[in-house]
Amino acid sequence: MKELKPVKVGLIGAGTIGKGVVDLLLHNGKLITARTGVSISLEKVCDRDKNALDAVAASGVAVTSNADDILNSKDIDIVVELIGGINPAKDFILRAINNRKNVVTANKAVLSTFGKEVFLAAVTNNVSIGFEASVGGAIPIIRALKESFISNNFEVIYGILNGTTNFILSMMEEDHSFEKALQIAQKKGIAESNPELDLSGKDSAHKLSILALLGFGINISPEKIYTEGIQDIMPQDITYAKRWGYNIKLLAIAKNDDSGLELRVSPALMPAKHLLANVKGENNAIFVKGDFLEESLLYGKGAGQRPTATSVVGDIIDIAKRVAYIGRENIIPFDPIGNGGDKKLVNIDELMLPYYLRFSVIDKPGVLASVSAILAENDISIASMSQEERKRGQSVTVIMITHKAREGSLQKAIQNINSMDYVTSKTVVIRIED
Amino acid sequence: MKELKPVKVGLIGAGTIGKGVVDLLLHNGKLITARTGVSISLEKVCDRDKNALDAVAASGVAVTSNADDILNSKDIDIVVELIGGINPAKDFILRAINNRKNVVTANKAVLSTFGKEVFLAAVTNNVSIGFEASVGGAIPIIRALKESFISNNFEVIYGILNGTTNFILSMMEEDHSFEKALQIAQKKGIAESNPELDLSGKDSAHKLSILALLGFGINISPEKIYTEGIQDIMPQDITYAKRWGYNIKLLAIAKNDDSGLELRVSPALMPAKHLLANVKGENNAIFVKGDFLEESLLYGKGAGQRPTATSVVGDIIDIAKRVAYIGRENIIPFDPIGNGGDKKLVNIDELMLPYYLRFSVIDKPGVLASVSAILAENDISIASMSQEERKRGQSVTVIMITHKAREGSLQKAIQNINSMDYVTSKTVVIRIED
Repeated sequence: MKELKPVKVGLIGAGTIGKGVVDLLLHNGKLITARTGVSISLEKVCDRDKNALDAVAASGVAVTSNADDILNSKDIDIVVELIGGINPAKDFILRAINNRKNVVTANKAVLSTFGKEVFLAAVTNNVSIGFEASVGGAIPIIRALKESFISNNFEVIYGILNGTTNFILSMMEEDHSFEKALQIAQKKGIAESNPELDLSGKDSAHKLSILALLGFGINISPEKIYTEGIQDIMPQDITYAKRWGYNIKLLAIAKNDDSGLELRVSPALMPAKHLLANVKGENNAIFVKGDFLEESLLYGKGAGQRPTATSVVGDIIDIAKRVAYIGRENIIPFDPIGNGGDKKLVNIDELMLPYYLRFSVIDKPGVLASVSAILAENDISIASMSQEERKRGQSVTVIMITHKAREGSLQKAIQNINSMDYVTSKTVVIRIED
Repeated sequence: MKELKPVKVGLIGAGTIGKGVVDLLLHNGKLITARTGVSISLEKVCDRDKNALDAVAASGVAVTSNADDILNSKDIDIVVELIGGINPAKDFILRAINNRKNVVTANKAVLSTFGKEVFLAAVTNNVSIGFEASVGGAIPIIRALKESFISNNFEVIYGILNGTTNFILSMMEEDHSFEKALQIAQKKGIAESNPELDLSGKDSAHKLSILALLGFGINISPEKIYTEGIQDIMPQDITYAKRWGYNIKLLAIAKNDDSGLELRVSPALMPAKHLLANVKGENNAIFVKGDFLEESLLYGKGAGQRPTATSVVGDIIDIAKRVAYIGRENIIPFDPIGNGGDKKLVNIDELMLPYYLRFSVIDKPGVLASVSAILAENDISIASMSQEERKRGQSVTVIMITHKAREGSLQKAIQNINSMDYVTSKTVVIRIED
């Protein structure tokens, strides 16, 4: 092989993932060179936090607190952005691109909201952008959609894309309350002290937006994706679901058919035999159905320092090989936007699914008849029903599984039921995926 | 984007997979161009079988029965070899490479036995070689090991790499006999009329050899991999295994640690909670443990016309993008051989595992004492034991699970036990993976 120049990397963001990238490049640098012929030189690491920088400097890597030292450097071939959030990350990414530097990022916020702008800038400036780490930690889902499965029309993408909520649901399967499960997650560093972004499903919506970019060629802002979190799920829901052969998971869902593209994040009852239903703890998984590949599932650590660093470094190596062997100016352009044609988004009201319903109602004659009548008026038929306790005059739990029903009709029925005086607290509705 | 020349593909082998590739390129050609900017032109398809060619010609694609029309064509950028087997496939692959054509192949036989030669020829001639379809059908395991996870030292690779045997074991879990399960598989077209290559584990050994190439940089011929098939497994083994919390799977195993590299194919008891233990039917899955990525599992269709075509076409597109945007002469060389350093292969005798043992012995006083004594002499201690029937003077089944023991000692003990007059048929030994 010919003698190659080392490929020069600048890293902005020396937090958990950034430090993992430094460690991986230093620890396995020789292995990487042995396998690829390319040597990767980590030129400089930038962070505003002095402690973070000190930890990196202790490994012998040059550090700076000024991102310009990396963004404006003539030498650097690849800028790695790992600070997260929109500002100033978006600015750094675009400046790096405009300075004709290849970019690797894990930034789901920037890509989901400004993907169109970023990819166009990359093509215009003749640079590559790697973002495997933005979805699913070490899971190679971006490469799968962008390369391995690129010949396929995608019918369904189901993702367990948030480790925190999956960990909490798994704990609840073992009979912990939601609050206790969250506490354990926080103690283990799996949940943040303010866990709202995870629990609300918003983190999953960011990642779903990126999968929709690749799978369907649209750049939809996460705020426009219908999103529910897991805050209303109780251990009893998990118990009942299990009895009927289901586990409860927070799913990010993209379904594409003649009626349009359905995108949403919501808890779902999944058949217990489905592999996705068996993804436990903080792990993530993505299930893809395509017109030729049939079914595929990719599973692994959805977060964490070392797994996420694996994906970041995989992207760095990919670009480094191209820069070293073929040259920095020669790129294969990548712009997923618009290549899926015009996609009509399905309105949530138009879904046709079976539903799990948990009612809290006063135990008195006529209540079930009333609930059933309201459901029937809205064309919703009951597949199974269970009321375990009898407590005359007091609040009891009634669980129902419906046959397939129109979501709009169901929501109307539930609103009606919730307004009845025998209802003691808001009815919980969970969709069933079959 | 600049105007690009179509990339020209010649396909040799119009059997099941070849026809799937033709269908996929024709059916989703516009989608591929929309997503990549590249148009792929299927110039010519070659087969010796007239019926196969007629089926392709009916789709409007030019056909030939002479492979030279493809191998010697000046125009063709990518030769796809899908005839399988060593001869004449190996010759075709090497001739294509020497004629400076990029190659895509699903040929596990050629790559496992002659990988070293093929990869070296590709580098020497400045061409790419794609082989995603050689292992695991639509599962993107080659790309994962070669790109996504390339920065990692691999500790463990476990694969369910053969759909036929996994289908049969899954049927046996549902109480079918081995013979009945095989019949069903043959009726469904999942097993061949001569299923020896699958049942014996040899097909898995071919694929394991290719994974070892990528994961550990060695080219070990499949005949040199310790290989057992599933022919000795009976439904009762599956029943007993289940009782102790295990499922039985045919695993291809690569484990790398300080003692060396362990490569083997053999049935194994896997903890029922492990995702691999829940891979059913004709599906395949590969579980990878790396020093940074931690644990990952890739699952999907391990064979079949359309899934395998997805991987072949993924490789075609990958090369086509590079040819169209960067030029046919500019490659990123890939030669995995030797980059893992000197690997010492672990001798099967040195394994330390727990074992499942099924004895067929005459039910008479002193037999269990004798068996236990022979095991004890060889340093093997029993963790659990079960003898369900009592049939004085007749043959009964005794099941044991041992603690971790040295394989060499265990085999010695079993040989000794098998020679006893109270043994009525060969003892069945299945390794336990934890």
